[in-house]
Amino acid sequence: MWEDAQAPLPLDDRGLAYGDGLFETVLVRDGRPLLWEAHLARLARGCERLGFAMPEDLEALPARAGDGLKVLKLIVTRGGGGRGYLAPETPHPRLRWQLGDFAPRHERWAGVRARHCALRLGIQPALAGLKHLNRLENVLARGEWSDPTIAEGVLCDSDGRLVEATCMNLVWRRNGRLETPDLSRCGVAGTLLAALSERHPIERVRVGPEALEEAEAVWLLNSVQGVWPLLRLDAADGRCLRRWSPGGALDELPALAHPLLGYPGP
Amino acid sequence: MWEDAQAPLPLDDRGLAYGDGLFETVLVRDGRPLLWEAHLARLARGCERLGFAMPEDLEALPARAGDGLKVLKLIVTRGGGGRGYLAPETPHPRLRWQLGDFAPRHERWAGVRARHCALRLGIQPALAGLKHLNRLENVLARGEWSDPTIAEGVLCDSDGRLVEATCMNLVWRRNGRLETPDLSRCGVAGTLLAALSERHPIERVRVGPEALEEAEAVWLLNSVQGVWPLLRLDAADGRCLRRWSPGGALDELPALAHPLLGYPGP
Repeated sequence: MWEDAQAPLPLDDRGLAYGDGLFETVLVRDGRPLLWEAHLARLARGCERLGFAMPEDLEALPARAGDGLKVLKLIVTRGGGGRGYLAPETPHPRLRWQLGDFAPRHERWAGVRARHCALRLGIQPALAGLKHLNRLENVLARGEWSDPTIAEGVLCDSDGRLVEATCMNLVWRRNGRLETPDLSRCGVAGTLLAALSERHPIERVRVGPEALEEAEAVWLLNSVQGVWPLLRLDAADGRCLRRWSPGGALDELPALAHPLLGYPGP
Repeated sequence: MWEDAQAPLPLDDRGLAYGDGLFETVLVRDGRPLLWEAHLARLARGCERLGFAMPEDLEALPARAGDGLKVLKLIVTRGGGGRGYLAPETPHPRLRWQLGDFAPRHERWAGVRARHCALRLGIQPALAGLKHLNRLENVLARGEWSDPTIAEGVLCDSDGRLVEATCMNLVWRRNGRLETPDLSRCGVAGTLLAALSERHPIERVRVGPEALEEAEAVWLLNSVQGVWPLLRLDAADGRCLRRWSPGGALDELPALAHPLLGYPGP
């Protein structure tokens, strides 16, 4: 399977035609993958939900990264065949992967500015949580701003409930509790969030965007960049909604999460 | 641009990574494309909405089909580059195309059976109407049944409003009027529907699925298969909701639409 695992995909691959597939981006340090079990678990869940077999023999892949900090990107598609949207009865999934050098944006570990996006995510429980290849909503949301001092965009669903940021999950502390948006209707279930949730009580809640302004601390997180504390949140029109002071309460989540990635604590 | 227009796309193409692109499937008879202006118009609208340039020189492409009935599939992606979901400032879109022999399923012109799908389409006005490459909802919906006597699946949005079928638009006659679902929140704005709407009054309505059961005639249509009159509509659980008699009122839309595709009338 690996012989051509970096070859281009044929034009009739359903991954290109319909986004009929999944991907993972895995942080790899000196050939050792971080949060590997969480990545494999999400990929397996995605394959099951989409109805094709998980590729075998992924285990030995990260070791190919060699020394240094890398990101391993895996793409798994349903392969070719079928009749239009109708998938073939016996799919032959394709695996592709890429390895790239990686340096986290460590200046953002001290805190960032984010904004609300105008785009609302469509509600789709059948795909919620998966890291599938249908990511136009994320692309459009990320296209809403070009100011490089804005690190991320916060997304609500079409019912106005908080979901995630364009490529990171959201966690906040409010009324003494750690909370994160319910992801059963849309959004990507991040692997760093999953690993943290296994170790610490983080409540999944259905709330509107005002929850962020009420929070003592808000964090953006994913498995390659780590945790970015929020110092400032803007509305989609640029108005500042809330500021938080660096350090203090904002240090909580990095202290819990960064050891899982081998990144320095606050 | 055409020199490599059938080559596979590189692995880092955003069309594969995120479904960041569009497609068209065009019926071509003896090198002459049908509804070509409508296909180009939808593609141009998509490129504008996604924010990259429409490929030039598409005009001469259908002539390559030669004699016979073919389907020309065009895929246009934003190309490579960017930083994650952030698109490159100056995208270099890629065009790919495929030509295949085609025979319409003419036995379905006499009438078909359809069912409601359990899946509900997410509401996303930013992408509504476009034939973009994020089609997992359609793939999952089409996966809901395998009975070959069921020709299509009818889809509602997450608010329960009628939208389309998995790969066809819906038109019906009710209370003396031709109606079709409003597609401003989700669904694909089909080119045959667009061409018919230019020539005949077809009202765009926001209605629930019961509108179909109230209709004197219901049709499924797209620009390659033509028009399929509905003889029977089932619920997602298989219960028959309504039957219609062949011929009579069901002949209306094929009589209007099939000449646009060079297909025989009823």
